Parts: sequence; C-alpha cells; structure tokens
Amino acid sequence: MPTQVIVLNGGSSSGKSGIIRCLQAILPDPWLATGVDRLIEAMPATRRSPESIELAADGTVIVGPEFDRLQEAWMAGVAATAGAGARVIIDDVFLGGAGSQQRWRAVLDGLDVRWVGVRCDAEVAAGREIARGDRIRGMAVAQADMVHRGVVYDLEVDTTHTESIRCAHMIVARL
Amino acid sequence: MPTQVIVLNGGSSSGKSGIIRCLQAILPDPWLATGVDRLIEAMPATRRSPESIELAADGTVIVGPEFDRLQEAWMAGVAATAGAGARVIIDDVFLGGAGSQQRWRAVLDGLDVRWVGVRCDAEVAAGREIARGDRIRGMAVAQADMVHRGVVYDLEVDTTHTESIRCAHMIVARL
Amino acid sequence: MPTQVIVLNGGSSSGKSGIIRCLQAILPDPWLATGVDRLIEAMPATRRSPESIELAADGTVIVGPEFDRLQEAWMAGVAATAGAGARVIIDDVFLGGAGSQQRWRAVLDGLDVRWVGVRCDAEVAAGREIARGDRIRGMAVAQADMVHRGVVYDLEVDTTHTESIRCAHMIVARL
Amino acid sequence: MPTQVIVLNGGSSSGKSGIIRCLQAILPDPWLATGVDRLIEAMPATRRSPESIELAADGTVIVGPEFDRLQEAWMAGVAATAGAGARVIIDDVFLGGAGSQQRWRAVLDGLDVRWVGVRCDAEVAAGREIARGDRIRGMAVAQADMVHRGVVYDLEVDTTHTESIRCAHMIVARL
Repeated sequence: MPTQVIVLNGGSSSGKSGIIRCLQAILPDPWLATGVDRLIEAMPATRRSPESIELAADGTVIVGPEFDRLQEAWMAGVAATAGAGARVIIDDVFLGGAGSQQRWRAVLDGLDVRWVGVRCDAEVAAGREIARGDRIRGMAVAQADMVHRGVVYDLEVDTTHTESIRCAHMIVARL
Repeated sequence: MPTQVIVLNGGSSSGKSGIIRCLQAILPDPWLATGVDRLIEAMPATRRSPESIELAADGTVIVGPEFDRLQEAWMAGVAATAGAGARVIIDDVFLGGAGSQQRWRAVLDGLDVRWVGVRCDAEVAAGREIARGDRIRGMAVAQADMVHRGVVYDLEVDTTHTESIRCAHMIVARL
Repeated sequence: MPTQVIVLNGGSSSGKSGIIRCLQAILPDPWLATGVDRLIEAMPATRRSPESIELAADGTVIVGPEFDRLQEAWMAGVAATAGAGARVIIDDVFLGGAGSQQRWRAVLDGLDVRWVGVRCDAEVAAGREIARGDRIRGMAVAQADMVHRGVVYDLEVDTTHTESIRCAHMIVARL
Repeated sequence: MPTQVIVLNGGSSSGKSGIIRCLQAILPDPWLATGVDRLIEAMPATRRSPESIELAADGTVIVGPEFDRLQEAWMAGVAATAGAGARVIIDDVFLGGAGSQQRWRAVLDGLDVRWVGVRCDAEVAAGREIARGDRIRGMAVAQADMVHRGVVYDLEVDTTHTESIRCAHMIVARL
C-alpha cells in the first residue's frame, strides 16, 4: 500500500513549510498540505488568543481546552480526507511531545503514515526566526528540542546544514 | 439540535469572506471557517492550474478530474470535522449549481446544515473585483447568477445594498 | 498642467485602498500608489510599535518622535518621486487633521495636487472593520471624524452608500 | 559621516530579504527597507506585466520603457528619503549589471552608500525558489550570475553556506 500520510514535526522556524513545498513539487502525484497554522487561520480572529491559543511574549505557547477540542475535530477531518483517497502532508509542532504523536496515531489509525522529524540547531533556527520577521522571538529556541521528546520517527532530517529540497528528496526516498 | 454547518454559496466577489468573518465575530461559540480557496491553497503550487483547476483569462473556471477527486476527499474531511463536534462555516462557489449542492448534501448527510445564498448584483460585484485588485477580471460577472441555478436555500442575503455585518446578523437570526 | 498627485485622506476602514485600486485600473496612465501603511511596512518589525507607532487596544494610535522623523523623510521621498515625473496616489490617515495636511502641503509644494476626503459613516466603517478581520477593533470609529477636522478638499466621496468604483470615477471626473 | 544607504544586489532567491530583516533587527537605529518589489507593488495591478515588466514563463524578466521611467522616478524618491535623513536599505536585482549600478550611483550621488553583493550558488538558489513556492521557476538560475556582471562592491556575502543573520553581522561590521 502506498503511503497516504506524511507527518512532519518540528519546532517553529525549523524549516517544515519549505520542505513541504518541495515535497509537493517533486512528488509525482498531487499531495494536499495542511497543518496547525491552517487550523489557527480557520478559527475566529478574536479567538486566536485568550481562551484558545496564546502566544506569550517570550515565545511559549499556551493551549487551552477550547483549542484542544477544535484541534481534535480538525484532526479527525484531516484523517478523513486521507481516508477518502487524498494524500496528505501534515506539519505540526508537537508541543506535547510523545503525547501529541499519540493523538495523531489514534486519529490516523488504519492509514499508512510516515513520521518525519524536522530538526534544526536552536541557534540557527533563532536566526531564521529573525530573518522571517513575522514571528514572535523566542519560539524557535523554546521549541527546538521540546517538540521531539519521546517522539518516534521513520526518518529525521536536519535543516541546519541541509537545504529544504535535499531534505525533501531524502523523505521521498523513504516512501 | 443546534446547527452544525453553515454553507455559503455565491459567485466570486459576492462578499462571502466578509460575511464569514462577521459570523465568526458575532457567534457566541467558536466556528471554524473553511472553503474552496483553502483547498486550492492546500494543493501543490504547480498543480493549481493545468490538470486540476484552470482560471481562464476571461474569468471562467475549468475544473478537471484530478481537482474533482481531491475536492471530494477534502469535502469528506470537512464533514468529518463537523461530525467530530466542531462547528464549521463553509464558503463555496457552486460552479455546478444544483449538482454542487447535491455533492455537499451527500457528504454532510446526518448533520444539521443551513444553506445560505449570497447574491450580489453582477455589475456591483464586477466593481468590487476591480477594487480587490488581486482577482482575474470577469469571474464576478461570469459566476453571479450561474452558481445559484437550481440551488435551494434556507436563507438568501444580498450584499448589493446590505453590509456584511448586517447579512451576518440576518443569518444568525435564522440558526 | 496635469494633476501629478492625488491625496486620499480618511479613517481606517473608510475604503481608501479599494478606491485607489479602482483609480489605478481606470486611469489611462500608470499611477504609483503609496501610503502610510507602506511606510510602516518599511520600518523594522521591532520598531513598528514602542518608540515609533503604537496601536492601543482601543484602536487609538499614538505616534512618537522617531516615527515623525521617518515619516517626514518618507514624505520628502514621495514628493521627489512625483517631482521626477511619476504620477502618485497617496493614502493617509490625517491623525493631526489640518496639521497633517499642512505637512503634506509643504512637502508637495510646486506640484499639482488634488485633495480627496474619503468619508464613511462610523457605524458602517466599524462593521467593515469586523468584516476585514485583521484590524484592531475601534480604529474605524475613533478616526471616522477626527481625521477630517479642518482639512480642505477638492472633492469628498462617501463610501457609506457608494461603491469604490463609482467613487473612483467621481475623482477622475475632477482631475 | 555615517552610512546613509545600503544597497543589496542579488538574483532572485539569493536571500536578500532575509538579510535585510536581520539588518533591521540588529542595527541600533531604525532603517527603512525598500526595493524593486515595493515598486512593482505600487504599480497598477493591470500594468504589472504587458507594457511595463514581464515575467516570462522561463523566469526571464523583460523590462519595458514605461517601467524604466517609473523606476527612475521611484529611485529619485528613495534617494530623497535618504537625503532627508532616514537611513535606507535598498534591495535590487541589477538586471543590467554595471549599468544598473551606474543608475543608482547617479541618483544616490552625495550620499554615503555601501554596496553589498548577495551571492548564492545557482543550484541552491533554484532549490530555495521551489521551497518558497510562490516564485516563477527559473528566475534564480537565470539571474544568479548575470546581476553581478561588472558591479563593484564594498562587500560580498554568500548565502550558500552562511545564514542570513551572519551575513547581516558581516555587513554591519563594515559600516
């Protein structure tokens, strides 16, 4: 059975989005891309902080029960899209480490999934956060290691010294 | 049972997005917003035209079999998100008129859905298309009536002379 | 001598940008569009608030001495572009009313300028602010009347009941 | 006299924008950032191609006389902004090589300018072009060497193996 879902997990500014655009460009079939940023955009503008998700000034992210509930439903939708025959690439930030992976495992049960860890040296990611200009400073460092705790991967890539396109080719070689 | 899904159908530049942001702002619970533009963004950049969706120079849209297949899977995902407990507002452009509604009906079966038609005088929509600046000219006029053919609504709003926020309040009054 | 500069002044969400895109579309010659939002984007991301410009939670805007100094230099640049032969449409929010106009008058001295006031009923503008979704609530109401105090116009348009494209045609008729 | 203008020249996807955001973040004073992309955005949507600038399918750029004239006026404006006391970072793509630099030299006459060449291996830039997803394929390769022909720099940086933030620190060290 061909791979139906690719999950990329990595901290903020680790390079997930660039890799995904490369994957979509080099994979022969069309893959849909989605991720937690798309969920946040789908939420009411006024709910993007207080009760739901909160981006503290130091870059830490606090997630509330309302966000959790919507995220759970959104995850079910992503799984259903894949189950209905569309190949899907998901990018996420496993703030809960192994626990976050467990939630996805439950929801993606029965689908053929590849788990990819996207690592980047914390200092380099912090520099890229500045170069992007639109990110809250501190997220890259705060999340660099945390999101990988206890997570099990089929493959890990490291963008510190490897370009997005090469990381994408390494992932494709493992499908 | 409370409404779980609101579907807004209307031509390009008829004012759907503005109404949705108002709905999200005034509804007491958080509703997720999605729509066909999100599906197109999820597709590979290189697939956004040829085989899948094509935006002709005169504003007509040609949809191919590959786009159809991905859209079907994406629709199943949206339905699953609503089925899993998240309230969802969908905006779509029913290029197939009644046939497009039938596809959504099948996929949303079992959910409590409100169907809302968003109308706008073709000439006014054409002017707003120019004011937006980032749309292909001609889509507003080409789609203004076409997308409503044979579609059955719970409520219709007309943005020609009514502001988005008022349209949103009219929709909320009917939930 | 043909008009070289059009200045549009109006509060937040009064509809300036839409009118400008329409003006650029219907005017036979190419006009460059610029405005205070472009200046803010040109500033360092980290300077977009504290010392320079501050968007208070209630939508009021506090402008500091550093912002003033950069704005003055930017205004000189816009005037020089027009002086060098490019026709320019400027949109601004005259937080200082007549004083803001005086600053532009000084800098645009010697150029043929048309002053256009863009009005919108405060309540309607507040609704459009919600429909845009990316604006701080309260700016539309706070600025609706304030920015026009003591300002002298060649022409005023009101977007409350008039579409952007019609406002643009009214402005073109007066060039 | 302190440096008043920094000009960064490099091909598409060579990394200019990231370096500029880093420069703005680390320089103690506020610097305004502008560049040819801002000029293109200022032009009428309908003029962004035919008579003015044309992006061919293979990534080559054809610039017409109308674009030239507007660019000349815009350059005069940028110089006037710097002359009026705002420090300015300009990013450009010297499609005319030494000739493009000569145009800027003439316009920036009397100001203290630092010329920075931003290089990137063509193949690496092509990969980053794919990772960005919103660029026409082929521009990175087509421009990689061409834009540097005959241009004289105070400093050259190479983003092939050096992060934006490090390049920015190298530039600051030379002011």
